[in-house]
Amino acid sequence: MHSAIILLICAGAVFLVSGDPVSEGDGVHPRSPRVKRAPGDSERDCTATPPYIPPTAKDTTDLLRRLRQGMQSSAYFAGSIQAYIIPAGDAHLSEYISERDQRRAFISGLSGSSGTAVVTNDGSGGGKAAVWTDSRYFLQAEQQLDCNWILMRQYEEGVPTIVEWLVSELGPGGRVGIDPHLVSISTWQGYADPLEADGKVLIESSGGNLIDAIWDDRPPPSTAPLITQGLNYTGKSWEDKITDIREKMSEQNADALVLTKLDEVAWLVNLRGSDVPFNPVFFAYAIVTANTAVLYLDTNKVTDDVRSHLRLGCTTGVSCVQVEAYDTLLSAVEALAADSGIRKIWISSASTTYAVFSKVPESKQILDASPVMKMKSKKNAVEQQGLKNAHIRDAVAKCEYLMWLEDAVPRGSVTEISGADYLQQLRSRQRDYMGLSFAAISASGPNGAVVHYRPSEETNRPITTSDVYLIDSGGQYKDGTTDVTRTVHFGQPTDYQRETYTLVLMGAINEFLQVFKQGTFGIRLDQAARAPLFSYGLEYGHGTGHGLGSFLNVHEDPYFRGTEGVPVGEEGTFITIEPGYYEDGQFGIRLETLAMVKEADTKYNFNGRTYLTFEPVTLVPFQEKMIKFDMMNENQLTWLNDYHRKVRETIGPELQRQGKNDVYDWLMKNTQSFETSRISSGAKAASSVFLLAIAAMCSVFST
Amino acid sequence: MHSAIILLICAGAVFLVSGDPVSEGDGVHPRSPRVKRAPGDSERDCTATPPYIPPTAKDTTDLLRRLRQGMQSSAYFAGSIQAYIIPAGDAHLSEYISERDQRRAFISGLSGSSGTAVVTNDGSGGGKAAVWTDSRYFLQAEQQLDCNWILMRQYEEGVPTIVEWLVSELGPGGRVGIDPHLVSISTWQGYADPLEADGKVLIESSGGNLIDAIWDDRPPPSTAPLITQGLNYTGKSWEDKITDIREKMSEQNADALVLTKLDEVAWLVNLRGSDVPFNPVFFAYAIVTANTAVLYLDTNKVTDDVRSHLRLGCTTGVSCVQVEAYDTLLSAVEALAADSGIRKIWISSASTTYAVFSKVPESKQILDASPVMKMKSKKNAVEQQGLKNAHIRDAVAKCEYLMWLEDAVPRGSVTEISGADYLQQLRSRQRDYMGLSFAAISASGPNGAVVHYRPSEETNRPITTSDVYLIDSGGQYKDGTTDVTRTVHFGQPTDYQRETYTLVLMGAINEFLQVFKQGTFGIRLDQAARAPLFSYGLEYGHGTGHGLGSFLNVHEDPYFRGTEGVPVGEEGTFITIEPGYYEDGQFGIRLETLAMVKEADTKYNFNGRTYLTFEPVTLVPFQEKMIKFDMMNENQLTWLNDYHRKVRETIGPELQRQGKNDVYDWLMKNTQSFETSRISSGAKAASSVFLLAIAAMCSVFST
Repeated sequence: MHSAIILLICAGAVFLVSGDPVSEGDGVHPRSPRVKRAPGDSERDCTATPPYIPPTAKDTTDLLRRLRQGMQSSAYFAGSIQAYIIPAGDAHLSEYISERDQRRAFISGLSGSSGTAVVTNDGSGGGKAAVWTDSRYFLQAEQQLDCNWILMRQYEEGVPTIVEWLVSELGPGGRVGIDPHLVSISTWQGYADPLEADGKVLIESSGGNLIDAIWDDRPPPSTAPLITQGLNYTGKSWEDKITDIREKMSEQNADALVLTKLDEVAWLVNLRGSDVPFNPVFFAYAIVTANTAVLYLDTNKVTDDVRSHLRLGCTTGVSCVQVEAYDTLLSAVEALAADSGIRKIWISSASTTYAVFSKVPESKQILDASPVMKMKSKKNAVEQQGLKNAHIRDAVAKCEYLMWLEDAVPRGSVTEISGADYLQQLRSRQRDYMGLSFAAISASGPNGAVVHYRPSEETNRPITTSDVYLIDSGGQYKDGTTDVTRTVHFGQPTDYQRETYTLVLMGAINEFLQVFKQGTFGIRLDQAARAPLFSYGLEYGHGTGHGLGSFLNVHEDPYFRGTEGVPVGEEGTFITIEPGYYEDGQFGIRLETLAMVKEADTKYNFNGRTYLTFEPVTLVPFQEKMIKFDMMNENQLTWLNDYHRKVRETIGPELQRQGKNDVYDWLMKNTQSFETSRISSGAKAASSVFLLAIAAMCSVFST
Repeated sequence: MHSAIILLICAGAVFLVSGDPVSEGDGVHPRSPRVKRAPGDSERDCTATPPYIPPTAKDTTDLLRRLRQGMQSSAYFAGSIQAYIIPAGDAHLSEYISERDQRRAFISGLSGSSGTAVVTNDGSGGGKAAVWTDSRYFLQAEQQLDCNWILMRQYEEGVPTIVEWLVSELGPGGRVGIDPHLVSISTWQGYADPLEADGKVLIESSGGNLIDAIWDDRPPPSTAPLITQGLNYTGKSWEDKITDIREKMSEQNADALVLTKLDEVAWLVNLRGSDVPFNPVFFAYAIVTANTAVLYLDTNKVTDDVRSHLRLGCTTGVSCVQVEAYDTLLSAVEALAADSGIRKIWISSASTTYAVFSKVPESKQILDASPVMKMKSKKNAVEQQGLKNAHIRDAVAKCEYLMWLEDAVPRGSVTEISGADYLQQLRSRQRDYMGLSFAAISASGPNGAVVHYRPSEETNRPITTSDVYLIDSGGQYKDGTTDVTRTVHFGQPTDYQRETYTLVLMGAINEFLQVFKQGTFGIRLDQAARAPLFSYGLEYGHGTGHGLGSFLNVHEDPYFRGTEGVPVGEEGTFITIEPGYYEDGQFGIRLETLAMVKEADTKYNFNGRTYLTFEPVTLVPFQEKMIKFDMMNENQLTWLNDYHRKVRETIGPELQRQGKNDVYDWLMKNTQSFETSRISSGAKAASSVFLLAIAAMCSVFST
């Protein structure tokens, strides 16, 4: 798991688990007390005279002036608006955003994945500007914002929500503008309904995005080429996928399906791209009907290779796909809405923007999870093998890295950043490597307790023999995406570190030992991974794991929190199992192992049913010195030994094949069988006693 | 668990767990093949000439004629209706229905808890009549229905739903009538919406219930007296409860709260009654506002005792309660709806009838779980102690029964019914006994596999030394409600019976060993109880447990399936833990033990948080001969020994106090410590080997 998922998983899971939000980022960025900053300091001080603004802050005075001019103009909205909301998202509600879509960062100066800006306009060129972000970015905000901006410390007591603030700032009949391409249906409604209840109104821009209009040096659209994925990687042609989709549409009585998620479109047509960081996707939409399938994308990207892959010459028959310009999607949706032959249009309830949603009249809407979401998560045999293969090569790089650290760390030469860089190098030498699947969380000591951590020049720490080191990283390979976390110590861990590591490991193993039914949703399987920590009065504040794509996004459904949509209980589903423990200001532990859902080998089969369980796909050893074996039960120890046997039997030959004999030796040493049970240790203890007894008794007998 | 809960729990849980319904009642009532019945048979044969109708069937010809006359008249509906739906419920959507409310049974002849009748009217006095029921009642239906009725075998392939049937039977513009007092909001909408989509309409009766109008010998309303519950039982005065309610209302900005569930009203005013079987409730509603609290009930029941309990003389102050006639509730709701001083009216989303719901304009509705639901489930210290005390006395009766069976069964003198009757006698001798909390499930051999089973003269089997015997029963005591299941064998159980019993026991123990967070919902804790069975490829098709009242209903929130509403993770919550296993046609196993949620004793407390766990409240031994100890792990064995120690230390003294020395001896014998772990047996084995070794070696030394 890494930074960007925290909001996605943690925010969700924390509320599911406890109802009380856990602040993740407190370890590195102490939240309080807020002391006044002196000139020369790295943080702004807007109460000083004159206000102190650090050199890292962006001067937004002129930008805000121009933005308010736009709010006043009727070129963007029908009539002027008194407030403008600038969300962090893109038109596909992506987790990773391209540089070109970083509108909130551009206008406020605050970079980072989370945050929404709101600018008001008092009609005379003035007004306020505020940005809401969570505790991960509080320090960064004080460094990057100038004094035009109010920092709204989200979820802190007394801090208003965006709507509460708008209600207090705007007069009766206040008009709030927003770009409907950048918000989900529920986000829109979350703003619109309470504003309306307060006599104000949320309005969608009709003349484009106000930020884009003042963004003079906005990066141009990506021209990165498309990559075709053959059957050897996908296991299923796009024609067959479209046939499957049409079956699902027919079950739902849907005449059209609009796909807006980038990974769903990429999966459907077996194409990949590199328009956003880390995710091998490209900007596109798709609309499928019973007879047509249209792809909306930058047509310049349709090379001969892509043309041939999509058989673009084809003009008749249901297996023909057409290509249209990216920005004609909305008018195509409007045409469907107006077409009397189209009774129902299926749009994804979770991932459709308000812009698309609002073009489909309610009577024609089928608002439900996209069928691709579910189909994509259940990998076919080719994808399964690809993911396994990618994880074998990825494990080679990871083992090589851990071995190298054992040697380099005691010599004091490695930092979080240089370590992560070296790991990237190692990965890049593996076959079919296509890049990282996310920016590595390479975290030493207290930085490991910052769940979202990503090392920067300011936070970079050496990896030492007196700290716990957590490395959460992954790669993109043509045959699969990887994401793995191991936590290690290169000196002598404390008893408490070993105890908590063992509880986390026991949680992971408990999860792997689950047997469950077809169709089981994630929420039912979450407690198992948390139980060992809970029984010690400890816990972690993030999700237990996430699905992962087949050379696609590192985060996709299902999660260990779902109650509907994509179940975990489906053969061929891949999901990470990643419990953790975070001791604020001290250390962090996370053990993340990818699992594949497969049929369980059970003694019976009630009413002929099959049961499911998890098979480990990530094959990287757990560090023996961190484990307190006496805390584990026999089943857990047996699983651990079986796992290490599988690691040595699978990764060992690959290491030999690659001629990495030193890593092979390291692996053999680090995957030896641990004592198999406490019975044997009990028996051993007993036998020593008895040997002493023999000696004593015999001396009696023989006298 | 017993019959009535199956629909409630099982239907829910089965869908949550697997999405595929499990038919519960197949063991006793084989569903197919349907052979034609010969005259003289116990089941009807409507294809015979003339149709064969068994003497157990009700002749409904005249009733249906009169009902259709009513459907034609304008006295009940504005204009005639073409179909009339007769639900099984009462005006409080109760689980247990009074005789007077058994309208579906009256019109069709089909008794039983589940089923909905629909009668159509072709305008000339004719039409069809159909009754929908589930597999538990298929056989019974063939015995009780005459040939006027179509039996709709619910959930079977090809059987239409009520709406599908209405759509196919009625012409365009068809009008369907229903009594809005007998259906929930969601049931109403489940009928109304698809009918409307098909151009038909659901209409509420304006002139009363059509069945009541033709029910000449309808039982009169209950005149059972009210019982006042003092502070020694409730731990909180009704005045304080109303104060708490008003606080919740204020948090929700609700100006009025309408309570329609019988147990919620009874809990609120600390009164009990006996208007429906098994549940100590009385017909009443309540409306609470900031200044008033009005009880709607049969004012004849307001004796001097009740008057004094409710301080009915009181006329000023917020702690005054008023009493109004039961049937003035609707007009009171209408008055609230019309009152401009009342902005919001809180009605329970799950338990309000459409009749009440439709009187509250949408702008005034707060549709949410009733606050009483949550407050009632968290027992205060007095209620906790009361429930524990009731379970001690209940355990005396249960142990007495099990001991008696051990002696009586081999003599061949006990049947399911006579056994249950004797158990009832034993319970009735305990202090503060107020009746059964449900009709006992006393099930021998294959009858135990029928989860809803309740012995009748036709199904009654002897309890023998060659069958598994399952007894699920409970009592009402002034200080608490009980519900306990134990499964025993009075001969030699098979290895498979012992294996499955042990898996069920391991599931129960796993659940007791859970440690979890405040606010945890039931669904997160469900897998733990199922896991041992799943790992063997086995399962049960019902819920894992339910909340239970303090001398109130035997079923209340929370359940091990909830995702919102009442959490399990709240100190003082009582919930049964009752995994099971059912081998169709062979035997059934269920082990039901009431648990109280309490603070867990953990080594650490993350961020000062407290964690929760389950304490057993039911204290009745598990049968040693049914347990395969070698399948259990150390933690499970330790729990089991601790449990039996608690049983002997708690129930033992009570047995002595009651002078039941024979039962005391039985209990001591049946709660001995089992071997504590496999280590000790391993060590024992080891020590024998070593003793032999000593002998051998010493003989060598000494030569």
